[in-house]
Amino acid sequence: MKRIRLTIEYNGTNFHGWQKQPDKRTVQGEIEDAILRSIGENVEVFGSGRTDAGVHALNQTAHFDLEAPIPVSKLGYVLNNALPQDIYIKEAKEVDKDFHSRFSIKKKTYEYKIYNNNQKNVFIANRASWMKNPLDIDKMKEGAKVIKGTHDFKGFCSANACVSDYTRTVYKISVEKDGDFVIVSVTGSGFLYNMVRIIVGTLVDYSMGILSLEDIKMAIKEGDRTKAGQTMPACGLYLKETVY
Amino acid sequence: MKRIRLTIEYNGTNFHGWQKQPDKRTVQGEIEDAILRSIGENVEVFGSGRTDAGVHALNQTAHFDLEAPIPVSKLGYVLNNALPQDIYIKEAKEVDKDFHSRFSIKKKTYEYKIYNNNQKNVFIANRASWMKNPLDIDKMKEGAKVIKGTHDFKGFCSANACVSDYTRTVYKISVEKDGDFVIVSVTGSGFLYNMVRIIVGTLVDYSMGILSLEDIKMAIKEGDRTKAGQTMPACGLYLKETVY
Repeated sequence: MKRIRLTIEYNGTNFHGWQKQPDKRTVQGEIEDAILRSIGENVEVFGSGRTDAGVHALNQTAHFDLEAPIPVSKLGYVLNNALPQDIYIKEAKEVDKDFHSRFSIKKKTYEYKIYNNNQKNVFIANRASWMKNPLDIDKMKEGAKVIKGTHDFKGFCSANACVSDYTRTVYKISVEKDGDFVIVSVTGSGFLYNMVRIIVGTLVDYSMGILSLEDIKMAIKEGDRTKAGQTMPACGLYLKETVY
Repeated sequence: MKRIRLTIEYNGTNFHGWQKQPDKRTVQGEIEDAILRSIGENVEVFGSGRTDAGVHALNQTAHFDLEAPIPVSKLGYVLNNALPQDIYIKEAKEVDKDFHSRFSIKKKTYEYKIYNNNQKNVFIANRASWMKNPLDIDKMKEGAKVIKGTHDFKGFCSANACVSDYTRTVYKISVEKDGDFVIVSVTGSGFLYNMVRIIVGTLVDYSMGILSLEDIKMAIKEGDRTKAGQTMPACGLYLKETVY
């Protein structure tokens, strides 16, 4: 038995998220199905975390245990031939048996892409969220400084989250302009449900004058979801990096 | 009665091409439907030419005649609210009654995008064609020089074309590298069925050593489709500009 670590890119548009669900097209489900069809082995693939419907990944990490004597060097090729066009295995390698994609993780980076132009662009749909009014990058950077650090992030979490400890560390937030795009990159120890989308929505709402810096501070201090900003749409979110 | 000229962007992925067909989703059909639903008028929209299933447009031109007393300045806004996310009206303006999107056209530019990288990219699917092996831009430019000019392009036309005169003028072909993309831009007086996709396929096949320069010259001289290159996939083709 070998433990295999996968690095996976996927376009989340046509998936009901990462996690396997009966009768729904999911990334985990498609990968397990591809392993079964190409190698003939029924495995469970564990991701570093779930991504929601519509959320993309540039480098999702997952692991599974394999009995079949297929050379690991051929595994990526074999799986990619069996996978649909919206999933791509960038790397498959053997790792120690104590490696766990979810429990061994040290930090994770998400990137959020906003297409910031007053004209619609039909090629951007499902790859970035569209905002017509110019965003103020300097204000967004100022808001990011308030959010960075170790806090109780209960105010930046969707109501249907089910955790006992809301403390997380945001190591880094950067806000950059790249042509017509505004890119917010958030690196953290781990994230609550919808946390990145709410962080970005808070920076956007501060940029637009809907929230004040004081509101952001209160959202953190009081853990009050109503003080934080909007939840940005899933289509702009990319799981960019996982560090072990 | 006013004659209206539209400049339209569309993502061709989920359309059975431009031209209206019963029970199929087409760009013309969606625009006519949006005019009917938003303005209440049943019109026929004439495009500068058809585009095939999967082919995109950055600037398709179309015209139609409108009786409704809606101000032309509001027309783009009204139609965009009624249109699906993969079509966008970039401009709507009143033109002379003798303007015709198809018959008044002087020249047209298509752009073909090739994603040229040995790794798959799931975000490129349906927006460019993917070629793993590095293309030789200098060879493609050399091949382009042979194709440029006024010729009988019968050899660069799909067999099911139904025209009597195959003479067309290619005013300009450029081949450029832009990061991982190779962009071929072709400007002509008009194009035969699949002509741009076959021109690009011919340059690609010459780059890969499948065809010689002599083959390309023979494809033009003898009008022999078998001497020209492959027909590139629709997903990399963009109607970029129409000049009147």
